[in-house]
Amino acid sequence: MPADQLVQNLESALSKVPLIDPHSHIDPLAPVSKSLDDILGYHYYTELAHSAGMGKALLAKDADPRDRVREIVRFMDRYDNTAQYGWFVDIARTFLGFEEGRKLVATDADKLYDAALKTFAQPDWEAQVFAKTRLEKIFLTNEFDDPLKGFDTNKYVPCLRTDALVFQLHLPETRRRIEAATGVHVRDAATLRKAVATIFMHFTRNGAKACAISLPPNFHPAKFDDEHVYEQMNFHDFQDLAPGVFWLIAESCRDFKLPFDLMIGVNRRVYEGGVYQGQDLFDQRTSLLQYKELFNAFTDVTFPVSVLTSAQNQELVAYSWIFPNVLPNGHWWYSNTPPYITKDLTERLTAVPKTKLIGYYSDAYKLEFVKPKYGMYRRILANVLADEFVRPGALSETDAVALGTRLLRDNVRDVFKV
Amino acid sequence: MPADQLVQNLESALSKVPLIDPHSHIDPLAPVSKSLDDILGYHYYTELAHSAGMGKALLAKDADPRDRVREIVRFMDRYDNTAQYGWFVDIARTFLGFEEGRKLVATDADKLYDAALKTFAQPDWEAQVFAKTRLEKIFLTNEFDDPLKGFDTNKYVPCLRTDALVFQLHLPETRRRIEAATGVHVRDAATLRKAVATIFMHFTRNGAKACAISLPPNFHPAKFDDEHVYEQMNFHDFQDLAPGVFWLIAESCRDFKLPFDLMIGVNRRVYEGGVYQGQDLFDQRTSLLQYKELFNAFTDVTFPVSVLTSAQNQELVAYSWIFPNVLPNGHWWYSNTPPYITKDLTERLTAVPKTKLIGYYSDAYKLEFVKPKYGMYRRILANVLADEFVRPGALSETDAVALGTRLLRDNVRDVFKV
Amino acid sequence: MPADQLVQNLESALSKVPLIDPHSHIDPLAPVSKSLDDILGYHYYTELAHSAGMGKALLAKDADPRDRVREIVRFMDRYDNTAQYGWFVDIARTFLGFEEGRKLVATDADKLYDAALKTFAQPDWEAQVFAKTRLEKIFLTNEFDDPLKGFDTNKYVPCLRTDALVFQLHLPETRRRIEAATGVHVRDAATLRKAVATIFMHFTRNGAKACAISLPPNFHPAKFDDEHVYEQMNFHDFQDLAPGVFWLIAESCRDFKLPFDLMIGVNRRVYEGGVYQGQDLFDQRTSLLQYKELFNAFTDVTFPVSVLTSAQNQELVAYSWIFPNVLPNGHWWYSNTPPYITKDLTERLTAVPKTKLIGYYSDAYKLEFVKPKYGMYRRILANVLADEFVRPGALSETDAVALGTRLLRDNVRDVFKV
Repeated sequence: MPADQLVQNLESALSKVPLIDPHSHIDPLAPVSKSLDDILGYHYYTELAHSAGMGKALLAKDADPRDRVREIVRFMDRYDNTAQYGWFVDIARTFLGFEEGRKLVATDADKLYDAALKTFAQPDWEAQVFAKTRLEKIFLTNEFDDPLKGFDTNKYVPCLRTDALVFQLHLPETRRRIEAATGVHVRDAATLRKAVATIFMHFTRNGAKACAISLPPNFHPAKFDDEHVYEQMNFHDFQDLAPGVFWLIAESCRDFKLPFDLMIGVNRRVYEGGVYQGQDLFDQRTSLLQYKELFNAFTDVTFPVSVLTSAQNQELVAYSWIFPNVLPNGHWWYSNTPPYITKDLTERLTAVPKTKLIGYYSDAYKLEFVKPKYGMYRRILANVLADEFVRPGALSETDAVALGTRLLRDNVRDVFKV
Repeated sequence: MPADQLVQNLESALSKVPLIDPHSHIDPLAPVSKSLDDILGYHYYTELAHSAGMGKALLAKDADPRDRVREIVRFMDRYDNTAQYGWFVDIARTFLGFEEGRKLVATDADKLYDAALKTFAQPDWEAQVFAKTRLEKIFLTNEFDDPLKGFDTNKYVPCLRTDALVFQLHLPETRRRIEAATGVHVRDAATLRKAVATIFMHFTRNGAKACAISLPPNFHPAKFDDEHVYEQMNFHDFQDLAPGVFWLIAESCRDFKLPFDLMIGVNRRVYEGGVYQGQDLFDQRTSLLQYKELFNAFTDVTFPVSVLTSAQNQELVAYSWIFPNVLPNGHWWYSNTPPYITKDLTERLTAVPKTKLIGYYSDAYKLEFVKPKYGMYRRILANVLADEFVRPGALSETDAVALGTRLLRDNVRDVFKV
Repeated sequence: MPADQLVQNLESALSKVPLIDPHSHIDPLAPVSKSLDDILGYHYYTELAHSAGMGKALLAKDADPRDRVREIVRFMDRYDNTAQYGWFVDIARTFLGFEEGRKLVATDADKLYDAALKTFAQPDWEAQVFAKTRLEKIFLTNEFDDPLKGFDTNKYVPCLRTDALVFQLHLPETRRRIEAATGVHVRDAATLRKAVATIFMHFTRNGAKACAISLPPNFHPAKFDDEHVYEQMNFHDFQDLAPGVFWLIAESCRDFKLPFDLMIGVNRRVYEGGVYQGQDLFDQRTSLLQYKELFNAFTDVTFPVSVLTSAQNQELVAYSWIFPNVLPNGHWWYSNTPPYITKDLTERLTAVPKTKLIGYYSDAYKLEFVKPKYGMYRRILANVLADEFVRPGALSETDAVALGTRLLRDNVRDVFKV
């Protein structure tokens, strides 16, 4: 069988697996796009267009959406080499009737804009996207005071995002929001415990299946200390407070039996003049060693871990190989392009128990992105399975598809109990 | 010639090279396994089974070995994707008659256990393993007070392991052991020098061909200072003492003309609840720059260096390219899986003089592991030689085999004088 | 079409692109070699020969050049696996009539030495090398007090190298040279500003198209502060002075509209006993985060950035994806071997706008090296274009060649305005 045929067979089989996407930023009350601006306003496109020279005037909130789309498309011939451009072409073809094999040019912007307006206005558009994507469920990212009302939590699975609780507790506004959501006025360790418990109660009662947080490279968790927290509260010093509050969240994950997604490595607002959501970068000098105490203390909490840099993938592989409660999770942000996915996936697949590998998540803001992103991942997964397992004779084609299915779906079900 | 045929030819030719394995943990008085528990009790299997969910009851020392083996095998369908699983299947096929192409299942545990008992009990088992592995010599890891008696040091080559001397000299027990071994009561710099010289004398007289140590990521050697050591002795502070004692060991390597194997990067006991030998991890933030003074001071000591993380391989490549006395050595521990070996080997082979590349060592605890581990390495070596040298026309097939042979055997002979 | 045919087609098409080499150390008054010693005296060969065991006697300045060449060639059978050896064979074949397919042996040294003497003595040798290399222009590395006289600055493009200004301003000798070149006696911030402006004026009037500097791993730029500089001047403390002077150079790049090449990561004189130019190494623990303030403050200065370690390439990719003024530049020094180029190039090509990718520079000291170095790069580029774009159907062969041409030539023209 020719090499390519094998990869095609694997990819084709994997494309039939119904997806459960374990991390996204979908708004369940507005899950699909309304216009092409919702697609191309995604920070991956505004970032690349801006990085390639597009001015910021049309990126302003009140700029005309059609003009913005025209400009972002016009700049595509400067970044049509990127994986992100590939996602857009996939969307244009799958959802907007853009012809296979045609090259996208600046003058396509208006046609696509019009096609999107019409297509996205269909009353069953959300259902169509679910069907074309073979999407079964998708996890959300919910602020701690999200009422979790008005959507099907079986399909849109709530996930408690705790960045604000951990890193912004020193802000009066955060404490006001906590009080509004829980009825608890946080003024010391005891009231903080009570507020957090109330939040977890609310989330788990409403079908939440995970807790999540993103963490800077230099973050170091520290045991929650009631007295210390009380004092810090008065000083409003978040730098000192965050490690302890994080610990308290981990305790709650244990008590409420929720996996705790750690997304490690992002420095916020590095490029101060960057586009919306396009200002964050990283420092490669980070280590999971900083989480040693956490992983040892919470042996009964599952930690699906995402790392921002591929150089840290070997640490993630080794910590997942040794710690029963540490799992590699997806391919995040700056590591979500083909060369990094290929490398990181290959390293994980040959060293970490297969039952612990959560293959991928879309991180999408609009449902239309789930398909092209998973499409990219499946192509890479098919190649890695072919090269590492089928061709060397370690697995049959059928067994390789089963292994791929485990990464795509089975492990998500097992780990998050969905 | 089809691509695969070339790789097969190279692999086949390389598999005929008699091996000199320059680093292992073989006990020369009990070099081979007595039961399947000796095979599957290897930390790679207990780690992976435990990481994949196996409880620790059966991993206890006094648990029934057959039950333990059954449980580890039962969990294999959770980690049969790993390279380590591949080693076990290779052992089962080569030594225990497990059928080629059959899939290993939980019920095979008893059959394999019985087969192992019978096979390993053969009086010439050790010789059989040597023959099937084409093994000529294998280096040991000997504690400083090892009598080095009762085995053929030409076949089992002694290597002085110095971790205890360097990192545990502050413990009374260590000094007691030194006194028992050397007759020297260490109480200051002069007596320490005398004790170390006595140890090196004992080892070199008994055929030792290397000295070795494993070092934490943040270790920084410092010139041995007689006065400083004397004071520290009194304070029993090993953190401050270790850099200087390490320096003294390097001086002895120079005086006794022994290569000094450095194995850099391991943090001990990171996962406190881990299985035996499955508690150590690392911090990727380490640099060979910490060894600048050492490499400059000891130009006449050869330092075969192993790094724990593949990210540090480029440092190892560059330092080996520049320093005549620095050599890349094997693929250690968390970097001993196919993706890391492939990457690190390719990087070394295209930038470091070929006479300085020590290709591989088994790190094995039982002789049965030498064959599958070297088998994995040879497959990768054959692929890298094909891709980087034969296909681009830089080397003929014959010359590529010669280059591979150099990495597998010739350089071990030249560097360690065996 | 067979896989290899595609790569050959791409490589052949790319080899026809006239080169503009954006970074070298060519002396425009002596751009080509006079003897084989000029070729093999290049630090890549002296380093590798020395690292492989060659003594330093023949590496001394006053040693006989023919003897030195003989010895370096004699040691080649210890490092004929390296990429650098490949460059030499290419030079021998292209310029010295060494037969295709023959193996280089020690006895070839004299024949090649004689052939070189004769060949390099041809009056039109420089023009021949330009023609055989399809070289159009090449950037230089000029000290701040270079008169920039006696050569065609259209062909040999001046580039202001600022290491001495930034890191050696505390030395009286540097200030003496500044005064000699500019007529300004530097004694405080104002006179320093004036001297630097005079230097930039001199360079831009003489066709300089870039400013450049190499920086140690731990370097952290800081805003130039007139008062601080004045005080530091008195203390002659360059460690504190350098960050501010660097900032002043960046201001001048802005004022004089010159791109500022940053070459990040080198530690000088790590191997103190190393050969000439073969003493520098690195610490992989470096981050572009240290340049956050710089990149934010100088949005109108273009920073083509070279990193010394491949592990830092992901940072370079991400910072170039986000910051409009940050561009990945070539494959520097210890990252200039095939495995690192392949990895780094693939990562850049799938994530950074293609208009921002400066593919390669030779870093050559003699013009004869431009051809083999670019030859190595083009082979890798052809392979990456084939694997990542043509075979997956993303680009036609013609479009892939256009993309490659952009990296090789178009972007150099656009970024440096040549």
